[in-house]
Amino acid sequence: MNLLDQLEQSKQQINHYLNHLLLQRRAVAPRLQEAMHYALVLGGKRVRPFLTLQVGQLCGAPSDVIMRAAAAVECIHAYSLVHDDLPAMDNDHLRRGQPTCHIAFDEATAILAGDALQTLAFELLSAPHLPLNAERQLTMIQVLAQASGDHGMCGGQALDLAATGAAHLPEPELAQIHEHKTGALIRAAVMLGVLAGDDEAQDFRQHFDDFAYNLGLAFQVRDDMLDVIGNTSSLGKTKGSDAEANKSTYVTLLGLDGAQQRLQEFHQKALHALTKITYNTELLAAFADHLLNRDH
Amino acid sequence: MNLLDQLEQSKQQINHYLNHLLLQRRAVAPRLQEAMHYALVLGGKRVRPFLTLQVGQLCGAPSDVIMRAAAAVECIHAYSLVHDDLPAMDNDHLRRGQPTCHIAFDEATAILAGDALQTLAFELLSAPHLPLNAERQLTMIQVLAQASGDHGMCGGQALDLAATGAAHLPEPELAQIHEHKTGALIRAAVMLGVLAGDDEAQDFRQHFDDFAYNLGLAFQVRDDMLDVIGNTSSLGKTKGSDAEANKSTYVTLLGLDGAQQRLQEFHQKALHALTKITYNTELLAAFADHLLNRDH
Repeated sequence: MNLLDQLEQSKQQINHYLNHLLLQRRAVAPRLQEAMHYALVLGGKRVRPFLTLQVGQLCGAPSDVIMRAAAAVECIHAYSLVHDDLPAMDNDHLRRGQPTCHIAFDEATAILAGDALQTLAFELLSAPHLPLNAERQLTMIQVLAQASGDHGMCGGQALDLAATGAAHLPEPELAQIHEHKTGALIRAAVMLGVLAGDDEAQDFRQHFDDFAYNLGLAFQVRDDMLDVIGNTSSLGKTKGSDAEANKSTYVTLLGLDGAQQRLQEFHQKALHALTKITYNTELLAAFADHLLNRDH
Repeated sequence: MNLLDQLEQSKQQINHYLNHLLLQRRAVAPRLQEAMHYALVLGGKRVRPFLTLQVGQLCGAPSDVIMRAAAAVECIHAYSLVHDDLPAMDNDHLRRGQPTCHIAFDEATAILAGDALQTLAFELLSAPHLPLNAERQLTMIQVLAQASGDHGMCGGQALDLAATGAAHLPEPELAQIHEHKTGALIRAAVMLGVLAGDDEAQDFRQHFDDFAYNLGLAFQVRDDMLDVIGNTSSLGKTKGSDAEANKSTYVTLLGLDGAQQRLQEFHQKALHALTKITYNTELLAAFADHLLNRDH
């Protein structure tokens, strides 16, 4: 199966799983559940769950555990988008070509839906009787929590807020923002796939993590470039919104050519890390190529 | 040691633990960490951690696990207060006699601090190498997640939002709101103490849960009464804020006398549940008496 078929299949798998998860869930508060469903299943590239699925399969993880882990990572990602879009944060009205959650519902519901999606991630990962060693399962929860909280994604978002208006951050500070804001969860997506895997796979943790770390940084550089060279309809968000918000990006810092060069450096490091892993990582390499050349 | 001394000691223990936890934590984003610290350590009755500590001790739980569990519950409680106080939710400026988090910092920081406090709860509970069976530890995480999310606290908050303006809800609907909004986390606080305990203690899970369920409902009835009969300075929040918001409460539904009677029914059921437990539950009974007669 080629990459595009595989991407499509993974996307359908995760969409089906998330959709089923929400629809079969007893609704205490129907409007809250609708908002969670809205935030969770309305499209998106599903980059993170794709990584968890592929890495999990390579590492011999049980499919139920892989799907739970992929869904948990996507719950965290979806919640972060809902909260980032709020008026007090980025104040975005459009996301993935659709009204953002607080526009489609209301602000209070969006705050709660984000909160409950975060909780759902940890509920999914702490389910009893999974076909996995309980200590490994605890480690998965620990990894996801560290990647999501003040030492990970939330910390990165706070750094990003603090830096808005400072158009020329030094590159190490910009990298620090992205390592936390987007990088941490991409690394967690990969690491959850490894941790769900068999004992042998654990020997490759560091190499998988090197891959994920560099892929995450490259992904963010591409994102910054697309904010300048992309177009609003294929991005599903407003082009030029970074510049408008006077945000530091790899493009404002290094120019388009400099950003492209940095992207290639991270890309090569990601591919190099894969060469250290004795499994067939061709699909992961193809995915990196695809992701880093994407136009939306 | 009498109840008041014990309450004070527990409060100091938990405050010390939370304070130490935040201060020794590496700060990725200092302002975010300050806001988390502010939300977490600025006073409060510490009802939930007191329950976890007392029940955990009765059940023979290791002290490190008890403190983590108590801190995790308080992280969830603190995050929920920060988000509930936001302008889009209850729009409260005063909490525990102090400016609310979004007033003391800003709205974006308050949203993120709440988010990161929730994550911290799950990070605390998923720590490796605790002196506890890993499966039991997973169950603790599962219990806290279910109590916090759309099937628990967030669900209750969403129901509460939906009901605001409906001054005369039927009592079962009012009870449903409170069972989720405040009851679920009080039950989790107690259950985490039991789950952290020894094998024998697990036989009393149901009785501890009956105690917690009724205590939680009684606590909420008292809260509704205090909104009418309390005074702003001892409450640390604005008296009459429920009536102003046109919220259904046990008092609007049953009157003050009717609410007092309902409180006593729940109180008696809570005490009755304790009689089924063969440990010395005198302090828990005294705590229930204290909590349900409190004037702030």
